[in-house]
Amino acid sequence: MKFRRSGRLVDMTNYLLNHPHEQVSLSFFSERYQAAKSSISEDLGIVKEVVENQNIGSLQTSAGAIGGATFIPGISRHEMQETLSELCEELQDPERILPGGYLYMMDIIGDPRKIEKLGRILATHFQGEKVDAVMTMATKGIPLAYAVASDLNVPVSIVRHEHRITEGSIVSINYVSGSKRRIETMSLARRSLQPQSRVLIIDDFMKLGGTIQGMKDLVTEFQSTVAGIGVLTEAADEEEKLVNDYVSLTKLSGVNERERKIQVEIGNLLDD
Amino acid sequence: MKFRRSGRLVDMTNYLLNHPHEQVSLSFFSERYQAAKSSISEDLGIVKEVVENQNIGSLQTSAGAIGGATFIPGISRHEMQETLSELCEELQDPERILPGGYLYMMDIIGDPRKIEKLGRILATHFQGEKVDAVMTMATKGIPLAYAVASDLNVPVSIVRHEHRITEGSIVSINYVSGSKRRIETMSLARRSLQPQSRVLIIDDFMKLGGTIQGMKDLVTEFQSTVAGIGVLTEAADEEEKLVNDYVSLTKLSGVNERERKIQVEIGNLLDD
Repeated sequence: MKFRRSGRLVDMTNYLLNHPHEQVSLSFFSERYQAAKSSISEDLGIVKEVVENQNIGSLQTSAGAIGGATFIPGISRHEMQETLSELCEELQDPERILPGGYLYMMDIIGDPRKIEKLGRILATHFQGEKVDAVMTMATKGIPLAYAVASDLNVPVSIVRHEHRITEGSIVSINYVSGSKRRIETMSLARRSLQPQSRVLIIDDFMKLGGTIQGMKDLVTEFQSTVAGIGVLTEAADEEEKLVNDYVSLTKLSGVNERERKIQVEIGNLLDD
Repeated sequence: MKFRRSGRLVDMTNYLLNHPHEQVSLSFFSERYQAAKSSISEDLGIVKEVVENQNIGSLQTSAGAIGGATFIPGISRHEMQETLSELCEELQDPERILPGGYLYMMDIIGDPRKIEKLGRILATHFQGEKVDAVMTMATKGIPLAYAVASDLNVPVSIVRHEHRITEGSIVSINYVSGSKRRIETMSLARRSLQPQSRVLIIDDFMKLGGTIQGMKDLVTEFQSTVAGIGVLTEAADEEEKLVNDYVSLTKLSGVNERERKIQVEIGNLLDD
């Protein structure tokens, strides 16, 4: 295909969106489009202006021989606020109340478009943390974890309850399950996380934080460091949480099964 | 922001890529960019030419008062072939052999970029099947299922082994686990799949097809129809499979633990 500027901009936008956090050189685009580097630089200037003005993310460009561009997906604080307000509204629907004060959330977790947007909020929040890998606990944390990892362009490690994992040698640890106050076991395949990684822990729900604390311990077992913790929903509880260095997108502050009322507010992510 | 054509093309490309299988009207873009519909039509013509020539997908445009554009993500047969050949190559690494003839695949399943590309292959294959929902079995099928569902712009239903699912009323069925020939149970929350849906079943691994057959039965329990079945890897087996209407991306035709040799070929998806 022979490219003019207009065509280059379409292809370049697609390329950059699909290679977040990856430096793409001027030479690469110059060869791809058979165009002078000076023209490519101008193209990148246009892409940069639009993605930054439209709050799609940012484009970090550098000039010179080793020049190029890196696309960092992002979302504005205003859009975070709007997205999370809508989510709180949705979560307050009394139809969601399940026996035991649980909340039905699979419709939200099961919607790829919604989860991608929530993942983008967390990826934006943690974009400066030099994350090497995202860790989550099966099952319901997985979709959000992949959405975040996709934006940060890093792999996902899935921790599981089972012992019968057919993945070679595994590392298992015990942890106290917050909701049931029971000793449980979580396992991760030895080769599914590189030692010395900076790990971002993502989960769907946190009550006292027992599961998250377990994952923190597991990160240490892999000679790695926790780069951050992000959860979709935290539940308010009278008891002190086991972890305090987390961000939450939403906060479930009350479920009244008898009156069928749920109170959900925006989590601590937007606090200053 | 004030848009010129070049800026419109960048924003429009981003918008369409993020709203696959959704008709976007000329009026929407015309208002968004404060531009005449005739200009928007020309813009869409440029986007269409590039996405189709670069094998990013197709753009179905319609003119007139109710005119607009629908982006359908897609990948060319040539790129499918290339991607799957590389995957076979990767899977044949003897380091993957686990006790019992299993294969370590979490590095591939854990890589969002790779899984998105494999998901795109399946989404392209099933794009004409009017899919309403994707169904998968926890845990390892989930990432691929979301990648497919994201491209098809439909929700995901996650079937699980456990009975202790805190998601309200659940539908459970028994099935014969192919690898262990045991009767097991799988469950899906009643509200996580709309009746009368056309369901695409996605999983990571299929041996005899017992789990897939279970999901097919579950689809029927929800008064729904199977729109298709797609798996990442099928294992060749002497015994006849329980299902035969599936497509596979790769086929594991032999694992020799003693000689540490694995033979993987491209699955039946590319057969004519």
